[in-house]
Amino acid sequence: MDLLESPLVKIMNPESVVFLGPSNKVSNMATGQLLTTMNGGYKGEIFVVHPKEDNVLGFKAYKSVADLPKPVDLAIMVVPTRIVPETLAQCGEKGIKRVIISTAGFREVGEEGGKQERELNEIADKYGIRFIGPNCIGVCNTKEGICTTWFVPQKSGTVSLISQSGTYVSHTLPYLSRLGLGLAKTISVGNAANIDTVDCLAYLGDDPQTRAIAIYLEGIQRGREFIEVAKEVTKKKPVVALYVGGSEAGARSGSSHTGALSGPDELYDSMLKQCGIIRADTLEDLYDWAWALATQPLPKGRRIAILSNSGGPATSMADTCIKWRMEVPELSNDLQSKFKQFVFPWASSKNPIDLTFNLGDVKPFYDDIPKILLDSNEVDALLIYGVFGTYAFNLLKDMAGDRLDIPLKDMESTLKGLCEGFARIPELCGKPMFGSSFFSREQEPLVALLEDNGMPIYPSPDRAVKAMAALCHYAEIKRRD
Amino acid sequence: MDLLESPLVKIMNPESVVFLGPSNKVSNMATGQLLTTMNGGYKGEIFVVHPKEDNVLGFKAYKSVADLPKPVDLAIMVVPTRIVPETLAQCGEKGIKRVIISTAGFREVGEEGGKQERELNEIADKYGIRFIGPNCIGVCNTKEGICTTWFVPQKSGTVSLISQSGTYVSHTLPYLSRLGLGLAKTISVGNAANIDTVDCLAYLGDDPQTRAIAIYLEGIQRGREFIEVAKEVTKKKPVVALYVGGSEAGARSGSSHTGALSGPDELYDSMLKQCGIIRADTLEDLYDWAWALATQPLPKGRRIAILSNSGGPATSMADTCIKWRMEVPELSNDLQSKFKQFVFPWASSKNPIDLTFNLGDVKPFYDDIPKILLDSNEVDALLIYGVFGTYAFNLLKDMAGDRLDIPLKDMESTLKGLCEGFARIPELCGKPMFGSSFFSREQEPLVALLEDNGMPIYPSPDRAVKAMAALCHYAEIKRRD
Repeated sequence: MDLLESPLVKIMNPESVVFLGPSNKVSNMATGQLLTTMNGGYKGEIFVVHPKEDNVLGFKAYKSVADLPKPVDLAIMVVPTRIVPETLAQCGEKGIKRVIISTAGFREVGEEGGKQERELNEIADKYGIRFIGPNCIGVCNTKEGICTTWFVPQKSGTVSLISQSGTYVSHTLPYLSRLGLGLAKTISVGNAANIDTVDCLAYLGDDPQTRAIAIYLEGIQRGREFIEVAKEVTKKKPVVALYVGGSEAGARSGSSHTGALSGPDELYDSMLKQCGIIRADTLEDLYDWAWALATQPLPKGRRIAILSNSGGPATSMADTCIKWRMEVPELSNDLQSKFKQFVFPWASSKNPIDLTFNLGDVKPFYDDIPKILLDSNEVDALLIYGVFGTYAFNLLKDMAGDRLDIPLKDMESTLKGLCEGFARIPELCGKPMFGSSFFSREQEPLVALLEDNGMPIYPSPDRAVKAMAALCHYAEIKRRD
Repeated sequence: MDLLESPLVKIMNPESVVFLGPSNKVSNMATGQLLTTMNGGYKGEIFVVHPKEDNVLGFKAYKSVADLPKPVDLAIMVVPTRIVPETLAQCGEKGIKRVIISTAGFREVGEEGGKQERELNEIADKYGIRFIGPNCIGVCNTKEGICTTWFVPQKSGTVSLISQSGTYVSHTLPYLSRLGLGLAKTISVGNAANIDTVDCLAYLGDDPQTRAIAIYLEGIQRGREFIEVAKEVTKKKPVVALYVGGSEAGARSGSSHTGALSGPDELYDSMLKQCGIIRADTLEDLYDWAWALATQPLPKGRRIAILSNSGGPATSMADTCIKWRMEVPELSNDLQSKFKQFVFPWASSKNPIDLTFNLGDVKPFYDDIPKILLDSNEVDALLIYGVFGTYAFNLLKDMAGDRLDIPLKDMESTLKGLCEGFARIPELCGKPMFGSSFFSREQEPLVALLEDNGMPIYPSPDRAVKAMAALCHYAEIKRRD
């Protein structure tokens, strides 16, 4: 595949766009799409078409596509369903070759809508247009690209999303920002009448910013092509998919949502396996797993070390590792002896290594122990619990007022230095290491620091374990090839 | 069981407490425990013992327990391991009958520690003392009770926790506050040398504030008594448990954490079933499920309706419902016809009912449709997605500045009124209704409003579905009795 051939290149990186539909009221989807494009870092030209207004959100409004001073790279269209075909033809006449059709009311509503949708393709073919949609929220490119998703991702990163649901690449952006996951590109394919999941997969497979791809699937139309492309892409980078059309109720819902052609769960399950795609059970898994896959080196085996400053999470992680077919080997006496100097007499270094409640020197946790563990040949990866910075102490300080002396500034700078080094350990040792904390990135600055340096910190121990299982799974897919 | 007989009554509601161990530095666990008690709403008397200091955090410090002006209801002890026995004996001499021993270094470290732990019980028996611990963070009673957990829960509610992990009732409190879950009482049992999970279960079973109980289990010592008590409690209120000692790695970790005596997973699994306890797979499930069980009426069957303003979450929920053995029945034409007036021609009312992107009248979503659905005899429960209040519009307003006119104040007051009514629908109709939103309670005031009125709003559609499955499960346990 040649990236330059993809119809998505111009859609994700347009130098000029026209919005068909926004107004000075928020009642139209296009108004939000224009606003997030204006505020999402887009550096190109913006034009607006409105049949009646002279000015929309500060932009001169042209009465029609024909009136535009020049053809643009991309049109984003939210006009009433019945005039979508003629508006698409107007784009064609003007020389606009890439379009996002957000308007709904096509194949998903039944036979009549299906007919109209086929008409869109005929018009597109006539003019050499490639379009996304209909019935979608559009796209987001976090690197100074277009962002039509109503919410602007707070963080650029290396995970890209393909979704048949607009919500999963719009409403979920604040969720992903809270989680700490950084996005590269998102594409809402909607009914996928023209540009479909296969096109997106091929494009993102070649996209240098994308290190892992997550797909929300209600059904696949071009099965053979999907398998062919997916097999190539998964050789290069990991792909995770959530498929929800496998039950009668899921199929019924998907059909009225995007007109999806779903199939039995077993069929899709074996097809995804065949392609080397990791199947997620839930939406949280989908995002969680893509995050680890996009940021961490792959483990060479399934032997997991666990380092914690608390026994509950250590025990939960150990048990969940076994449930997810990983190993938590008891460490050799030789290796254990290297940790003895760092742990209390009542703490354990067998694996999990549980430092227990300890407000003393934190260097062993963030530096000595992880390095010794990952440099050994006894484990392939490290899961941690206990990013315990100044958050708790700030709360205690608030409660105590002047009556308690806590050297918060010193703690902060020590921890910051240690954690910067900590985040580099996976690269240094060539083995994955990440974990969990019950404190959010807004609460605990160290969580944000680690995440912003490429280390996922999940909101619960189990979720970190499952993400590690996904890494092991993809490492095996790669070895199989 | 008579609640008044429980040793936990005085521990959870002491009129006077003494802290043995806090200082003017934060290096000791007791300092944090004293601070959260001072700031957690506790109304009783507080005493502090310190061998050297005259004053600790503003309290006069007595040199020893013997010096206290009177016996107190409860002692909280964080003194070095070797002097725990003699300090416990001093409490006995002073007439203090209830103690929390936070100090670690007992059974969990091996044979010698086990011997010391037995010694604690001998001393306790001699003086008629009942104690929690050792190796625990203590307790929290959100209704003006004691709170020794380093973090103060932001919200009082009806879920109570019993945990062999201190972390799961301390570090997790900020997590649960973000989630929106309200706590009644929490008990960290630690090594459970004296007061154990059985005692806690019996106590919370009779506690009027507690509507659901969540247990984190690494192992059970008094198996027969556990079954006996649990069988009685689950007739009255739901109990969810996370058991993590079933694998070799989990058992190894639990043993060095709390000296837990774990057993094979299958054994515990069938024991929990026998007791009518719902088993959670992960910590998130444990909290999530207890939340729904503590706030919602029980469904009479497994027929679920789904109402959404977005097709992706609707489809995900439908598919996940089937995976969790619930039904998503296609609604009768008769019932569907009642919704036709509220939905766009391209939207679906078969079930899921998907209103799609709609910035018009929101009353159908928050009032008409849920009531018609739950008043029908076609479904037993309702799952929703799409608490879409002013959050998104505030963001758009920020992006647009003066160029966009959004009547935020009007929207807010309309939505507030509607949502207050919405939260009452479960009680009104006698059927459960809750859902999910990707906006957090800090971001979207409506999420907080619904949660504070007793309706869980989970961070993802799948988690809402799984919580509904737990409700169906408990309803069946109740019917079986």
